Amino acid sequence: MGTQVDVVELAKRRGFFFATAEAYGGVAGFYTFGPGGAALKRNVESAWRDRFALREDNEEIAAPTILPEPVFEASGHLDGFDDMLVECAECGESHRADHLVEGATDLEDAEALEPDEIAQLVADHELPCPACGAQLADQPVEEFNLMFETSIGPGTGQPGYLRPETAQGIFVEFPRLKEYARGKLPFGVTQIGPAYRNEISPRRGLIRVRELTQAELEQFIDPEEDEPPLERVADVSIRLYPAVEQAEPESAEVGYVETTVAGAVDDDIVSSAWIAYYLGVTQEWYERIGIDTEKFRFRQHLPGERAHYAVDCWDAEALVDTATGTDWIELAGISSRGEYDLSKHAEASNENFTVFRQYDEPRTVERPTVDPDMATLGPEFGGDAGAVAEALETLAERNPDAFEDDDVTVVVDSEEYTVDTDVAGFEVVEETEAGEHITPHVIEPSFGVDRTVYTLLDHALETDQLGGEERNYLSLAPTMAPTDVAVFPLVSNHEPLVETAGEIVSALRSAGFDATRDDSGSIGRRYRRQDEVGTPFCVTVDRDGLEDDPQTVTLRDRDTGAQARLPTSELAGQLDALRDGDADFEALLSRYETVDTGETDE
Amino acid sequence: MGTQVDVVELAKRRGFFFATAEAYGGVAGFYTFGPGGAALKRNVESAWRDRFALREDNEEIAAPTILPEPVFEASGHLDGFDDMLVECAECGESHRADHLVEGATDLEDAEALEPDEIAQLVADHELPCPACGAQLADQPVEEFNLMFETSIGPGTGQPGYLRPETAQGIFVEFPRLKEYARGKLPFGVTQIGPAYRNEISPRRGLIRVRELTQAELEQFIDPEEDEPPLERVADVSIRLYPAVEQAEPESAEVGYVETTVAGAVDDDIVSSAWIAYYLGVTQEWYERIGIDTEKFRFRQHLPGERAHYAVDCWDAEALVDTATGTDWIELAGISSRGEYDLSKHAEASNENFTVFRQYDEPRTVERPTVDPDMATLGPEFGGDAGAVAEALETLAERNPDAFEDDDVTVVVDSEEYTVDTDVAGFEVVEETEAGEHITPHVIEPSFGVDRTVYTLLDHALETDQLGGEERNYLSLAPTMAPTDVAVFPLVSNHEPLVETAGEIVSALRSAGFDATRDDSGSIGRRYRRQDEVGTPFCVTVDRDGLEDDPQTVTLRDRDTGAQARLPTSELAGQLDALRDGDADFEALLSRYETVDTGETDE
Repeated sequence: MGTQVDVVELAKRRGFFFATAEAYGGVAGFYTFGPGGAALKRNVESAWRDRFALREDNEEIAAPTILPEPVFEASGHLDGFDDMLVECAECGESHRADHLVEGATDLEDAEALEPDEIAQLVADHELPCPACGAQLADQPVEEFNLMFETSIGPGTGQPGYLRPETAQGIFVEFPRLKEYARGKLPFGVTQIGPAYRNEISPRRGLIRVRELTQAELEQFIDPEEDEPPLERVADVSIRLYPAVEQAEPESAEVGYVETTVAGAVDDDIVSSAWIAYYLGVTQEWYERIGIDTEKFRFRQHLPGERAHYAVDCWDAEALVDTATGTDWIELAGISSRGEYDLSKHAEASNENFTVFRQYDEPRTVERPTVDPDMATLGPEFGGDAGAVAEALETLAERNPDAFEDDDVTVVVDSEEYTVDTDVAGFEVVEETEAGEHITPHVIEPSFGVDRTVYTLLDHALETDQLGGEERNYLSLAPTMAPTDVAVFPLVSNHEPLVETAGEIVSALRSAGFDATRDDSGSIGRRYRRQDEVGTPFCVTVDRDGLEDDPQTVTLRDRDTGAQARLPTSELAGQLDALRDGDADFEALLSRYETVDTGETDE
Repeated sequence: MGTQVDVVELAKRRGFFFATAEAYGGVAGFYTFGPGGAALKRNVESAWRDRFALREDNEEIAAPTILPEPVFEASGHLDGFDDMLVECAECGESHRADHLVEGATDLEDAEALEPDEIAQLVADHELPCPACGAQLADQPVEEFNLMFETSIGPGTGQPGYLRPETAQGIFVEFPRLKEYARGKLPFGVTQIGPAYRNEISPRRGLIRVRELTQAELEQFIDPEEDEPPLERVADVSIRLYPAVEQAEPESAEVGYVETTVAGAVDDDIVSSAWIAYYLGVTQEWYERIGIDTEKFRFRQHLPGERAHYAVDCWDAEALVDTATGTDWIELAGISSRGEYDLSKHAEASNENFTVFRQYDEPRTVERPTVDPDMATLGPEFGGDAGAVAEALETLAERNPDAFEDDDVTVVVDSEEYTVDTDVAGFEVVEETEAGEHITPHVIEPSFGVDRTVYTLLDHALETDQLGGEERNYLSLAPTMAPTDVAVFPLVSNHEPLVETAGEIVSALRSAGFDATRDDSGSIGRRYRRQDEVGTPFCVTVDRDGLEDDPQTVTLRDRDTGAQARLPTSELAGQLDALRDGDADFEALLSRYETVDTGETDE
């Protein structure tokens, strides 16, 4: 973990990430990924795509980042995507009122309280403004919607919002997406892209930003019929922190449950097999990309903490150093969203958000129906007769018992209409059905890409002694490192060395490696520079190698500083094996000549 | 070209792209890429990254899509990124006034006129509202800013804008980016991501949208010292349509200049060697990804058409079918932005947007200086003495001749101050300089990813006769196709076939192919489905093959329908060679057994 050097300082100096538009004093909550960070981020996205889309046989789509208001009216974000705001009367600074309360009390879940309860706590504890120290006691605590609003089209236009999650761009297209899946559940749709939250007080650098990148999978399932392929991850070890354990007082030991995916289901710690399946996939994936599993856990949301759409949710959390100390941060959430989103969009749009569940055998069902005698209703109710007939039909479906009396009453446009039961033509008929229309449920693994990038850097940053000197290096997995390999001429004023280094870079690029070259500064400085950006391997072209037959170069391992001399012709093959984990550097050292550099690890 | 079937209809039916949020009636100018389109778009982006970042040794960054107001104040977008709006008094519909004028007159470049000139033309031609037919003659023509505005932070917040181009996210970080490049020109920075234009009247489907994806390279150069590696593309053939040829009357033959990159520079048709270099790279790249070069040209912008920052610009244009007919559309623009952006940001932010140009030899320069006698100035000008001294210094740099008279006059805060020349201490000193600070110039290849995707589909859509039936297919390049290979069991109710097909899919995925399987419907229907989404190869597992020793499968070529039977073990290797262009299907047919399907091309 980054205790010796600061991740944020390294990130800025080496081009991983930095505050946006610092030339203009910056703008809180926005970060730019420099060359190294953008490459690391792309590698994370591509590893996620490989695991959660390709290997799970899910399809990826790309929806716009701006969506029109009706989408968020239906999804509940317009009403429910709020944080609690308190503004200082003295200095005008805005703060998250629930955070202030959490900082001053034992409360861990102040977000679950109502604004007036929070206002009361602010007053009770006489909380001051963190910016200027003035009392906040008499200030109102208000809900502030976290969506960025804009206007689509000229004039007053049509309100639009920057999506607070990529998910809605998937849900809203469900009627078409199900066609591409040929109407068969389960199927999954993924999306990777920007999402936005207009945070009241962004802080902690890359951890709480206003523009982020999400990688989300919406897994559409038939909740009664579909089972996940649990056997694929049954034995994966996971560390769970269930909600019930979090209720314990702070002094008690943290109540982790160390188990396997199968164990978590068998012991009913995770109630949904689908969530358990994705906990296993998530654990394997984070291990693979290089998160330190000692600093990793799954924490179940407390009931008051869940989003407005969530039935259950487990967060993947990592322990990292941040500007405000060592802290567990949320990297991903595996939620059960039930049928919330699809049914809300169906209701609001009047489109078909269901799929057809075919029965194994056709079923005979009893269906209450009416066949009102319009010759009687017509004269009696005039223009309302049709509406009355419809109301009778609805009533028959909902409450057939109502037709057991002599007459039956329905309400149309707040008016009561009473009809003789005989006239309604009520009957229970038998029908054969091949299946039924159901609204799929949604299981959602939702990943924060920026926080994953931050955690990879934090967990990879190491300091050691090499060749008698202290050095920093990023022990990133070779598949995640921004650069696969760096190539140096030993000295930069020797034309044949420089030329050969250039040829090797071109050859490695053609072979699919992200290769870089660096001619400037002492060789030791160049190694240190690559160590700090996590380049796993460095190739040096020296005079001895040029004279060798066949020509050789030295290959250096980032983590140990060990070097082997190998034929240039075998370089690409060996790098490929090292990157894919099919070979390790130890084996290379025993196969080829070891180079003594005085730089080996201590 | 898509004359037989409609690209837009195919795109919707097969999941390439469709209007966003149609469940809610849609929202003009926004499209969602379905599974096939998102994959095709990613392939375009990745091919662009490979060519314009990796192979050119440029670095890619990822800046936010929202940037604060000062960025666009400096860049000129707040003032200059406008279209001309006319609103119908009758129906309230908004229209682009310049487009209406172009539609009704011979004018091709109405954008270059002033709003009042356009208003006059609308009146002169008695133009009606295209929506309701009412006269627009008395309606004002106004500038409408095309940036989407939003508010950052709570309360009234701070104005922010969705970036109208990815470029500004690069320019504004130049002080840091030059450090990563160690202060050495030339260097290039790329970005791929969303950009936004709040179009007045979006139309023509994916061609004119409000949210798009750009791929941009900002190439920072020393305009006096740096030369592009023109020799790499010197012989590339290009079709140029210079501004001077476009001035010809419409009836004349289109005045293309068919030449090479070297020829265009030698004959001074393209005045900047850097622009010519990127025309060559762009031509090669579009050819490689599968644009029909017969429907491709580079058109120079007319003087009035250039963006507010551009010195010269050539658009890559393609001929496509759109909803409004066959038309040349802009795919990319190669501009010379000069020092416009960096100098504007330097001026507005007071930060250092220059790099140091080292002279080959140190130079001795004469520098006019002053050394005012403060003992005189102090008593004479009191509190203003310091400001007067500074003004003298500035004057000495700008106009040393002013110090030849007996006294010299400067203006401070609109007040004139006259000083004896003796007191100013004017002197011309000799200084040795190692170099100078210069503001780099920018060459910008800027690509529209969505339009490139549209054009690939349009140019790839073909109709032919196969096995006596008409079929549609997308002749996409194998590296661009959404799916590399589809695998079918010949029939879906034969367990060993289904199982083997599943194993082959898994093996191909592990080998890095985007493989899909399809078990449903007749084999002919499955072939047609894959033809329509452009899958270049289909593998079928049949009973004969299972019985063969070694086991075999059939491999089908999309464009001809020809099939070969080959050992399953050789499948991945052959597909790899076919995809990379190292082999063609003809060779495969002569090497392996040809399967007669009655489906071959006619």
